Amino acid sequence: MARWQPNARLRLVQAAIDLFGEQGYDSTTVAQIAERAGLTKTTFFRHFPDKCEVLFAGQEEHGRLLAEGAAAAAGTATPLEAVAAALDALAASFTPEQRAFGPRLMRVIDSDSELRERAAFKRLTLATTLATALGERGVTEPTASLAAHLGAQAFSDAFARWITPANDRPLSDLARESLDALREATAALT
Amino acid sequence: MARWQPNARLRLVQAAIDLFGEQGYDSTTVAQIAERAGLTKTTFFRHFPDKCEVLFAGQEEHGRLLAEGAAAAAGTATPLEAVAAALDALAASFTPEQRAFGPRLMRVIDSDSELRERAAFKRLTLATTLATALGERGVTEPTASLAAHLGAQAFSDAFARWITPANDRPLSDLARESLDALREATAALT
Repeated sequence: MARWQPNARLRLVQAAIDLFGEQGYDSTTVAQIAERAGLTKTTFFRHFPDKCEVLFAGQEEHGRLLAEGAAAAAGTATPLEAVAAALDALAASFTPEQRAFGPRLMRVIDSDSELRERAAFKRLTLATTLATALGERGVTEPTASLAAHLGAQAFSDAFARWITPANDRPLSDLARESLDALREATAALT
Repeated sequence: MARWQPNARLRLVQAAIDLFGEQGYDSTTVAQIAERAGLTKTTFFRHFPDKCEVLFAGQEEHGRLLAEGAAAAAGTATPLEAVAAALDALAASFTPEQRAFGPRLMRVIDSDSELRERAAFKRLTLATTLATALGERGVTEPTASLAAHLGAQAFSDAFARWITPANDRPLSDLARESLDALREATAALT
């Protein structure tokens, strides 16, 4: 049985973001990331399938949290109220460490077209997961996909504000505020 | 000066889609695509930077058409009316050949995660281009991005219906119909 490495996952993510920032994403190898984290390549691959996935760690968990949050909303909740509940559940999972390395994570992703594509696809996947969860609440298409898109957009906007050093508000507050702003803009559109 | 190859671009796209369908995207080389099209690798690279881009041919042109269509809408047009004008301009550029190989194109993209990511990113890029064009009409954020998202979704839905063999309606009609359905669902959401 593998020896337990305390915080191995977090150390690998931080080492990867440091190295990507210092020498670029393409020039960094998994061996270098493991070495910087004081771990082995074997440990790396126990946590991540490849170096790209280090940056998108926890996406499956994010989908699960969104789906569970939407499912747990009151039966009388409107589609957007269920989305707000889903965003609450997701926001609660984010840690101070994620906030601290958020700006560097965003810079790395913005620097590489492959990473930007992966990020766009992951966001689409999360929106699809949320739309499916809304469908299970009886929300029909295309309403479910639209509501899920607003949720994904709201969370993305809120995350960008949350990682701003000057900001000290909880991510869940920011997410609800962003969702409200998007709802108002949506109402103005029709 | 290079000799003119009639329809070289279209022949390369058709050869690529044929080969991707027959033997898979990963197993197909640029040399094979050029050979199947009766052209040289040099000619291939005059038209496309890599084999992936064969499938996303014309995306820059699509962005230009959306932006021009939105810009040309009447000054009194609402954001969604400007989006409809943009979709008209884009729809008018699609050819019977694109309709004919549409189902195979979709199957190839669906078969490969890299291609699905690229498709998601390209769609996001088109939506961003359209949002920028709406911004130049004075539409503020987040309304511009929302309207652009509805436009991208409507076009995607319409394209999927247009390439169904049983369908014989013009793409522009389908796009306007899809946009109307999305507008109604949006109104119901708020």
